[in-house]
Amino acid sequence: MERTMSAVLPSYVNDAWVTPDDPDAAIVRDASTGAEVCRVSSRGIDLAGALAYAREIGQRSLGELTFHQRALLLKQFALALSEHKDELYALCAKGGSTRRDAMIDVDGGIGVLFTYSSKGRRELPNAQVVVDGPVEPLSKDGSFSGQHILTRLPGVAVQINAFNFPMWGPLEKFAPAFLAGVPSLIKPATPTAYVTEAWVRILVDTGLVPAGSLQLVSGAIPGLLGQLRLGDLVGFTGSASTAARLRAEIPGDVRFTAETDSINASVLGPDAAPGTPAFDAFVRQLFTELTAKTGQKCTAIRRALVPEDRIGALVDALQTVVDSRVVIGDPRDEGVTMGPLVSLEQRDEVLRNVRRLQDAGGSLLLGSTDAPADLDAQGAFVGPVLLGFGDASVPAAHEVEAFGPVATVLPYRTLEEAAEIVARGGGSLVTSLVTDDPGVAASFVSRASAYNGRVLVLSSINARTSTGHGSPVPHLVHGGPGRAGGGEELGGIRAVLHHMQRTAIQGSPEMLTAITGVWHEGAATDVARHPFRKSLRELHLGDRFESGPREVSLADIEHFAEFTGDTFYAHTDEEAAAANPFFPGRVAHGYLLVSFAAGLFVDPAPGPVLANYGLENLRFLTPVSPGDEIRVTLTAKQITPRETDEYGEVRWDAVLRNQRDEIVATYDVLTLVAKE
Amino acid sequence: MERTMSAVLPSYVNDAWVTPDDPDAAIVRDASTGAEVCRVSSRGIDLAGALAYAREIGQRSLGELTFHQRALLLKQFALALSEHKDELYALCAKGGSTRRDAMIDVDGGIGVLFTYSSKGRRELPNAQVVVDGPVEPLSKDGSFSGQHILTRLPGVAVQINAFNFPMWGPLEKFAPAFLAGVPSLIKPATPTAYVTEAWVRILVDTGLVPAGSLQLVSGAIPGLLGQLRLGDLVGFTGSASTAARLRAEIPGDVRFTAETDSINASVLGPDAAPGTPAFDAFVRQLFTELTAKTGQKCTAIRRALVPEDRIGALVDALQTVVDSRVVIGDPRDEGVTMGPLVSLEQRDEVLRNVRRLQDAGGSLLLGSTDAPADLDAQGAFVGPVLLGFGDASVPAAHEVEAFGPVATVLPYRTLEEAAEIVARGGGSLVTSLVTDDPGVAASFVSRASAYNGRVLVLSSINARTSTGHGSPVPHLVHGGPGRAGGGEELGGIRAVLHHMQRTAIQGSPEMLTAITGVWHEGAATDVARHPFRKSLRELHLGDRFESGPREVSLADIEHFAEFTGDTFYAHTDEEAAAANPFFPGRVAHGYLLVSFAAGLFVDPAPGPVLANYGLENLRFLTPVSPGDEIRVTLTAKQITPRETDEYGEVRWDAVLRNQRDEIVATYDVLTLVAKE
Repeated sequence: MERTMSAVLPSYVNDAWVTPDDPDAAIVRDASTGAEVCRVSSRGIDLAGALAYAREIGQRSLGELTFHQRALLLKQFALALSEHKDELYALCAKGGSTRRDAMIDVDGGIGVLFTYSSKGRRELPNAQVVVDGPVEPLSKDGSFSGQHILTRLPGVAVQINAFNFPMWGPLEKFAPAFLAGVPSLIKPATPTAYVTEAWVRILVDTGLVPAGSLQLVSGAIPGLLGQLRLGDLVGFTGSASTAARLRAEIPGDVRFTAETDSINASVLGPDAAPGTPAFDAFVRQLFTELTAKTGQKCTAIRRALVPEDRIGALVDALQTVVDSRVVIGDPRDEGVTMGPLVSLEQRDEVLRNVRRLQDAGGSLLLGSTDAPADLDAQGAFVGPVLLGFGDASVPAAHEVEAFGPVATVLPYRTLEEAAEIVARGGGSLVTSLVTDDPGVAASFVSRASAYNGRVLVLSSINARTSTGHGSPVPHLVHGGPGRAGGGEELGGIRAVLHHMQRTAIQGSPEMLTAITGVWHEGAATDVARHPFRKSLRELHLGDRFESGPREVSLADIEHFAEFTGDTFYAHTDEEAAAANPFFPGRVAHGYLLVSFAAGLFVDPAPGPVLANYGLENLRFLTPVSPGDEIRVTLTAKQITPRETDEYGEVRWDAVLRNQRDEIVATYDVLTLVAKE
Repeated sequence: MERTMSAVLPSYVNDAWVTPDDPDAAIVRDASTGAEVCRVSSRGIDLAGALAYAREIGQRSLGELTFHQRALLLKQFALALSEHKDELYALCAKGGSTRRDAMIDVDGGIGVLFTYSSKGRRELPNAQVVVDGPVEPLSKDGSFSGQHILTRLPGVAVQINAFNFPMWGPLEKFAPAFLAGVPSLIKPATPTAYVTEAWVRILVDTGLVPAGSLQLVSGAIPGLLGQLRLGDLVGFTGSASTAARLRAEIPGDVRFTAETDSINASVLGPDAAPGTPAFDAFVRQLFTELTAKTGQKCTAIRRALVPEDRIGALVDALQTVVDSRVVIGDPRDEGVTMGPLVSLEQRDEVLRNVRRLQDAGGSLLLGSTDAPADLDAQGAFVGPVLLGFGDASVPAAHEVEAFGPVATVLPYRTLEEAAEIVARGGGSLVTSLVTDDPGVAASFVSRASAYNGRVLVLSSINARTSTGHGSPVPHLVHGGPGRAGGGEELGGIRAVLHHMQRTAIQGSPEMLTAITGVWHEGAATDVARHPFRKSLRELHLGDRFESGPREVSLADIEHFAEFTGDTFYAHTDEEAAAANPFFPGRVAHGYLLVSFAAGLFVDPAPGPVLANYGLENLRFLTPVSPGDEIRVTLTAKQITPRETDEYGEVRWDAVLRNQRDEIVATYDVLTLVAKE
């Protein structure tokens, strides 16, 4: 064990690194050897100044960027981190992580950045306002309508992280905040703060981090939460008791998201008998969740719900896997598959909770609570432990979280009872059900989903492709009701919107257009020049083309039917068509109408419009009879220049009318248009 | 003044009316005359039993219905209430409401029911699960994907209402809860509880209220909130201080929505000079908000922000309107345009807050705090009051809510400053801006929207069609950040979803199909019979038609170009097409492909498929060159029978492939299909 005194970990505030001078700084030790890794303190850091810097400088610098520009920076950050993976794995090993554990944290964190970069560019506009839902007409004449928008919160996102994922954890909070345009102040958990410091330094060293958008305070943040105000947010991951304490400290008008203890369940479906691939999948998944990160995952399985008569088979099968695969030790040692817990304190806490479970009647089905032999006594080593309860209703099984390689086995009789036992957890991050029967899945989920943020149905066909019970993915919501904290993180763009305020805007089409950046029906238009002749830079919202009329003759309809093969009776048989409740007689094909409309609005010669890549929200509203005339109006509705291409998307509002000015069809035409 | 003792108001619990026996029941008096209207007490009501009844019987009876079935019941309720309007207006008059005031409450409440009935059937599936967002692929082979769903919360919605809207207020909480499938327990405010009792009785008398889905407890609910648990909700409207007290009483895992004090602002735009229609619109709106419901609206204007040099003109203009239109008195008396406040206590509270504003430097610009002469001293009469502050930064102007016909006038210099003054309110339900300049609107909204739940831009063109600064509409979110309570109500289907839990579901396409009721790519299909020959009752998810191939020849493309007039160069000019970054050379029109596809999948003879009413999410993914072959697969994806028609909607998943099995295009075809 090293005896030299380590340095205090620098924090990053006001766009500068600060190393506190504090003889009483907390000592962080290597999980396997007890050697000092670093010291952690925030003494002397101007926390109020950091908040003010984020709110002023961070808000300003992020406010100069669009969603797409921020998304591209996330990609740059991901690429920079990708070049330092080995260095980051090595740091994770000090906290007890094997290479595989470290990959969850490091590669997982980088993956979050890539996903948000990609989703931000695909699912958000290249702008600063998100339009939420359709326009709501509020007046008969169209002069007054409603539209929901989301705009970023005007404050700072304070992110308080847990020790188990010092990279993925802060990044899954930072990425959506950054994309929303809200500056982050990251507080890592002390036992692994050095990992967070390392990746923050890599980001800072890129020179690409906008001023004030990212700050890091390692150590305590006394009084900081009380200084928060409307427009700020707190995202917290940790214990329910800490969450309750923070909730009391944080002013009521500050958004608070918590992701806390969760006694997650995994249910062996009634159809998954021993010997089936589904049974094997259940065992493998339970093994993974017990041992990955040495069980230190808020999403790990804590309760295995098993039909009463299969408990023996389960324990035997699990014991076989444990015996063949578990080698406990310093993760830097060759052959080790399971590292220590993060610290001796954490080990003691886990063993305390195992004893609470034993005191409540839990019997040891697998493993031991003794320290593994032949290992450094300064390492926080614990082996996998499985405890069995004869009665699934014992409260401790649903309330005590031993945050290590520990799970309980609970018997159930019926699927209804299994769902009830799951609900006893008081709200969970995730429950998994292992079944090959869709009826079982539907029945169970309808009963259990309201108690869970995520439900994973594992089947024999995806036993190998499943992302895993314990793995939140950036595409899906992470968080759960009740004991799980009641918050939501990730879930794709949902997490970005969590950093924004939804506001209902009411006004005229002109005002809604100016506010949203999306043309609203009734706002000003300009028909001076065919908008298909305008490059993206010349094009404006409201630029419009109005076609002349075209008659749709009976011959057209008959010809189109013959040409395409679409001889549906409504187009070909007057009597049958008239008997249809929706048609006055033979009518034109909808596809004929949109084809003629394209013929009316298209501008044939090469120009800035490169392609029509799609069409949305097509509705046929009035049938067109032979002899009717149609004409089309096409209006530039939304313009989305791409950051990295020489073109962008233009969405056109298309309206077809007949000679009586009735609306025949409405739709959005999606095109790619060159910037120049 | 009557001296007879009135009856205690009955409550409705466990599907029975109960009249408490309580000599100490609170006395409710007529707002104009002081005569006893009724007494209110909950003594002896088994509150725990009511909760249990809702959770068991209410959940079960609502759980037997789909969204559409519940939506139709809301319409029946609205129709029943519509037949009793005059009776309800008469009751509202006892609380001080003029006919016009009562219409806001009565017709507004009925309107909420109609809107949710209509939106429920148009925007929700005829099912019990809401699918939220697109499927998220999580494996390369398609065997594992994610999908968010929402399912109803398994508890009871406790709804605590304010006195000012005893009908609209509870109904805007009840309608979304009912539609979601969550039973309601309504607690009205004592001063107007008799109005709530009246409409609840009308609903109960229809015989259509599902068992346990609606309960009413008038009077105190001691200890009830502490008995709530995960799966229950509380919706509260009232003061911020009460909200804070409730928040402390309610367990942390219960969803709590508050709509509280809000010092709403109305900003006279820099362009709206005296003499302009916009200036007049500002004055009329301010007058309406001061006098409607005698200013007892949480959305009323409390702060009028006016360019410094126009304050005199504003006060003069407002005084003219007040003089010509305000007649204070008993709303049942002929000619009265403004009734009393709800009670003498409320009048005293308003006058106390006016004094606080005066003590903070507010000067009386209009009106008086003396009781109006010649009116019954037992009536809670107060006239309109406008207070001016020379300095807009005075805290009291942004913190004191005089909940009556009272507003302050605050000067501003620049639009930026106006937005800052608005933000000083600490979060508002609504801010209005009166301007005819879209640039002013966009600039102001970008600064102010994060502090508001709703922003109304009033212009000269919608001065008459605006639904009003103070009128929440069911289509738009009601609620605001910070001081406004931080909650959201209404907003169309958003309020329904608030009563549901979002859960990320992971699994195989088969499982996702079974759980969501929507066919997922990769789930089982059945090609035995052309699905267009199947009625809605015979049709199943996954029923599929697979077409044979059809070649797309150069002649087809040339012919289509000529026939439709769509002679875009990509279809007609080999060299120019090849120069386009997206095409290998001349390609088929997208509209030609979807037309040919229809020709491939259509079944011509009359049958259950009645019409193709639209198309969604069309994307062209691979260009089709002359000589390529296309074929189409059409799969039943979602089946939505209508409750009141002999047909329903079927959404078909359409996929076009070429001879190399590349996907050419994907889209959803929307059809109407007969039930039999």
